Amino acid sequence: MIDVHPAWLPASAFRSVGSRRVRVTGDGPVVATVRDEVRTAVADHGGALVEDGPADLALVCAPDDGETDPEAFVVGREGTTTVVRAVDGVGLLYGFHHVVRQGESAFTGDGEARRHAPRQPIRMLDHWDNVDEHPVMGQVERGYAGGSIFYADGGVREDLSRVRSYARLLGSIGVNRVCLNNVNVHRTEARLLTDLLPDVVRLAEVFRPHGIRVHLSVSFAAPITLGGLPTADPLDPAVRDWWAHVTADVYAAIPDFGGYVVKADSEGQPGPFAYGRDHADGANTLARALAPFGGTVFWRAFVYNHRQDWRDRSTDRARAAHDHFAPLDGSFDANVVLQVKNGPLDFQVREPVSPVIAAMPRTRLAVEFQVTQEYTGQQKHVCHLVPQWREVLAFRPWGEDGHTVADVAAGRAGTPAGGVVAVSNVGDDPFWTGHPLAQANLFGFGRLAWDDRLAPEAVLDEWIGLTFADDSVRDALHGLMDGSWRTYERYTAPLGVGFMVRPGDHYGPDVDGYEYSPWGTYHFADRDGVGVDRTRATGTGYTGQYPVPWRDRYESVETCPDELLLFFHHVPYDHVLHSGETVIQHIYDTHFAGRDEVARMADTWAGLADRVPADVFGRVTELLAEQLRCATEWRDQVNTYFRRKSGVPDKHGRTIY
Amino acid sequence: MIDVHPAWLPASAFRSVGSRRVRVTGDGPVVATVRDEVRTAVADHGGALVEDGPADLALVCAPDDGETDPEAFVVGREGTTTVVRAVDGVGLLYGFHHVVRQGESAFTGDGEARRHAPRQPIRMLDHWDNVDEHPVMGQVERGYAGGSIFYADGGVREDLSRVRSYARLLGSIGVNRVCLNNVNVHRTEARLLTDLLPDVVRLAEVFRPHGIRVHLSVSFAAPITLGGLPTADPLDPAVRDWWAHVTADVYAAIPDFGGYVVKADSEGQPGPFAYGRDHADGANTLARALAPFGGTVFWRAFVYNHRQDWRDRSTDRARAAHDHFAPLDGSFDANVVLQVKNGPLDFQVREPVSPVIAAMPRTRLAVEFQVTQEYTGQQKHVCHLVPQWREVLAFRPWGEDGHTVADVAAGRAGTPAGGVVAVSNVGDDPFWTGHPLAQANLFGFGRLAWDDRLAPEAVLDEWIGLTFADDSVRDALHGLMDGSWRTYERYTAPLGVGFMVRPGDHYGPDVDGYEYSPWGTYHFADRDGVGVDRTRATGTGYTGQYPVPWRDRYESVETCPDELLLFFHHVPYDHVLHSGETVIQHIYDTHFAGRDEVARMADTWAGLADRVPADVFGRVTELLAEQLRCATEWRDQVNTYFRRKSGVPDKHGRTIY
Repeated sequence: MIDVHPAWLPASAFRSVGSRRVRVTGDGPVVATVRDEVRTAVADHGGALVEDGPADLALVCAPDDGETDPEAFVVGREGTTTVVRAVDGVGLLYGFHHVVRQGESAFTGDGEARRHAPRQPIRMLDHWDNVDEHPVMGQVERGYAGGSIFYADGGVREDLSRVRSYARLLGSIGVNRVCLNNVNVHRTEARLLTDLLPDVVRLAEVFRPHGIRVHLSVSFAAPITLGGLPTADPLDPAVRDWWAHVTADVYAAIPDFGGYVVKADSEGQPGPFAYGRDHADGANTLARALAPFGGTVFWRAFVYNHRQDWRDRSTDRARAAHDHFAPLDGSFDANVVLQVKNGPLDFQVREPVSPVIAAMPRTRLAVEFQVTQEYTGQQKHVCHLVPQWREVLAFRPWGEDGHTVADVAAGRAGTPAGGVVAVSNVGDDPFWTGHPLAQANLFGFGRLAWDDRLAPEAVLDEWIGLTFADDSVRDALHGLMDGSWRTYERYTAPLGVGFMVRPGDHYGPDVDGYEYSPWGTYHFADRDGVGVDRTRATGTGYTGQYPVPWRDRYESVETCPDELLLFFHHVPYDHVLHSGETVIQHIYDTHFAGRDEVARMADTWAGLADRVPADVFGRVTELLAEQLRCATEWRDQVNTYFRRKSGVPDKHGRTIY
Repeated sequence: MIDVHPAWLPASAFRSVGSRRVRVTGDGPVVATVRDEVRTAVADHGGALVEDGPADLALVCAPDDGETDPEAFVVGREGTTTVVRAVDGVGLLYGFHHVVRQGESAFTGDGEARRHAPRQPIRMLDHWDNVDEHPVMGQVERGYAGGSIFYADGGVREDLSRVRSYARLLGSIGVNRVCLNNVNVHRTEARLLTDLLPDVVRLAEVFRPHGIRVHLSVSFAAPITLGGLPTADPLDPAVRDWWAHVTADVYAAIPDFGGYVVKADSEGQPGPFAYGRDHADGANTLARALAPFGGTVFWRAFVYNHRQDWRDRSTDRARAAHDHFAPLDGSFDANVVLQVKNGPLDFQVREPVSPVIAAMPRTRLAVEFQVTQEYTGQQKHVCHLVPQWREVLAFRPWGEDGHTVADVAAGRAGTPAGGVVAVSNVGDDPFWTGHPLAQANLFGFGRLAWDDRLAPEAVLDEWIGLTFADDSVRDALHGLMDGSWRTYERYTAPLGVGFMVRPGDHYGPDVDGYEYSPWGTYHFADRDGVGVDRTRATGTGYTGQYPVPWRDRYESVETCPDELLLFFHHVPYDHVLHSGETVIQHIYDTHFAGRDEVARMADTWAGLADRVPADVFGRVTELLAEQLRCATEWRDQVNTYFRRKSGVPDKHGRTIY
């Protein structure tokens, strides 16, 4: 067993660059990173790092080049030299990895010079890591890859070599911000802002040479719990003063500190409501403390009533973020980014796009994804999520001629720019992500955040090429991974209805697990039908949170997309989908099919025995067996549940228990 | 707030005895206990402990009296003196408390001398206490009254005054054995048998003056984990030797040690199966180690497959104990008692009597009850269980002319004597039992174990009279408690079907909570009907484990008692009960009624505001509010679940969500 897997940056990935003569021009810590990368690559593959003379690859950091985006780079061929130019070290780093990904093709042809720049200004990973082990959630909340890579023994780890490797991986895919601790801020973690700050400085130093700024999640109650004040009222001058002083201290220690991430008035976290203030009051108070230093507040829109009564059919958790935040559009300071989960509920395998994204034109919005697979197999299941994120980013809330979600986040829709954020899936597991194939989700998030137009298959193709030395595995891995999100969808909760997972840990099926809970996540299945009526006509009115045309498309059972039917409508089991199949038969068919697809995935993988490293082969083989067991359990519980309830037999006569 | 509540032995309970002239004759530690009781009582109430001269009460321990049962006593009036005679201190103690319970009536009339003796030789309480806090189960497994009264800081408590009070309470109701630790024996607790033994000695010393022998739960794997042997095979000579030596050491320290309690090959506990041995091999090995010292093994019959597949309809957990143990009848040594749960599943609010009890005429059997309210409201709900236990003890497996369950346990059915055992409901809570009214279950267990013919209302009446100084609360408490078990049954799982509780903690409703689990506890509700077919004709054959007449009565849907219908049969919702109501309407009716009864219980209690101590009033008021909330939740979840599934409306048009 290796100590830590190289992920998508094994030595083999640098063969094309490393076998050539390479020149690096420029100064600064990130240029030094590029130079180090080149030095290692040429040592591995027989090339040379040259100071002058002819070069196959010239990496040039020239601050006066007229380019305004420090993250941009231009790459082209000048004679027999491939030249990458950037005005800043970080642009050069991105250009270098662009060339690495291109491989041999970067060194052929006449390659006209082409500018590359990120489509999103902020590309951030949030870690839900705790310093201490949480008694229920563990050290990493919703983490499925072991403990935290940052913390051990009550503080930041002594040995940061793993963090260094992580920063290198993130830099290679263009991630430029990392939030270092859980949005649920517990007692010890709150102190990262104050007496544990010297530890945070050490982490910032590790991330800086890779172009990454660090953030902290802070507790809204910190003025009380850390500051000893009697209140955390955001309009109280002493509170504002406390935030200002604490923030100044942070910047004195970390001049390029990114800012704060805040989960307030959500799932028991403290917030401005306690003082009769709104979220803008809360966010702006922190923003004003950060503004003098160029820092940003990421304020999460994940706010809802988690003590709902299941008997109350009028409250709809899906409405909550829009109800809370849309009226505040225009009230947030310029250095506040509202961080909105991609869907209105909570990272389900299938949800509509959050209506908040189309409802706040005067607010900076970041779309939040979940790379950690909380509801999508917990890194025991292969579930390649890039196609899901791509669908969300490409969604056009105003119809086919309107802007995309990516446009809104990027500031291309006449709205101020936010960015994209995701919850990391990394832990101290030797494969980083528990499931070795889940590395592709981390890679793919960075790549899509850079360019939302990339095809998921192309992103996966890059990842396969970098990660595996033996190119003959490519087709098999595409076969196994390309469609794995839809496979997961098939064997779990059907037609956008969501949840049906085991309460608490959210792994494995429990159809009624949340049906009578206070969490606001119900399916309302009875003997006649299933689904949640969220129409304006007869339901919760949630469809009215969307602009035209989606407010009408979702409203009508005729035009609502099949895959979201049960999210928007309660329909009888014999309702006929656009596919031509009834809802009940669709449930049976997809659950049999999804489970059988997993069986085929396992067969496909078995065929790679001698073509992938033995440790990777072993781990994935083991996990595919668990995925098959779990998918079988999903198939049988869901089918039996609906068979018992509907009384409708499977028209193909397959076994339903 | 008092430090610890006096339970049924407040000073006021001793008024009749304490206001009189009392003589105590005899020697030994238990007689000394009686003398101490009298000394305290007369000091409180103005009487006198006299050495000679006229007495109102003479308590005489005379070993040569011709009586063979040391626990028996004779009480009568000789002139104006009430005389209690016994051949042993423990009989005298029981006689003393008999007089205390009688109050003034013990001192009137000409009272012919009458012999009293326990109807069961063994009356035992098992504590599921751990020395250490268990990460999931807490310090007391299935404990609802705080931590353990025995253990703190990794060993037996320094201060044993609470244990002393507990021993006194148990002695007053005739409990004569206590097992000191959890049947699931974890690492630290295993060591009570060896290096923590000096601690156990201290506990034994506290219980001894109250006529109580102590037991330990032991791990079948102890020869390996404690003894360092390579095996725990019960037929291995080294293993037998190890048990013999360890047991001899225990008796050297505690000459009246009671023996062992063992949960083997059950829910993950080690046992003889690993060595290809059966339960008799296992139990007899321990029995032979204990025999030279007069010790007993209590071997639990709670053995079943807890990794069942819910899809497998042929395996029936209810069958398991009989399947495992009935064939072993005649194989157990004379100092083995097979400890059988009262029902075939697990202490549900309603189960049939375990068929094992009628199936092993050559085996000593003890019936095990659960005083701790795991499945019956967890001491947050008033659920007076004495009527349930009374029904079980009075049940006649061979029909109306046959012996009762109590007869079998007592050895009156031509079978060797076992006894009755219960899991204690006591913790370090100031009221002992969390819910102050749950003290009545502990009291009632002792009284029924002494005499199974006592009426539950009479036992409760004794408890009320002893516990509450103000006699005007008597009717209200009967109204609140007499029927509370049936009330609990009404608002929870219907018609004997069982479970429907939240997995893990077993509190509150979750109709499908165990429906797709590996635990073997299913209800099989579908749109047409509900219940488990355990008939010989079409089901699991479980009815065949009973003798005539019950094998036939349970087999037929016509003769099966209503309250067990769904335990034995899967029936359509429109099946008409003997009550004349359909199953579905019965479910609705009982759930509305049960919940409303709780509301009335809360009203009744509110009327006692100035007649019970303020702390008791406050705690019970709080808990009744929780009971009402929880009963409402049960009503609504169960009704909604079956309304959705059956499609049948409530004929009275009440609200079902």
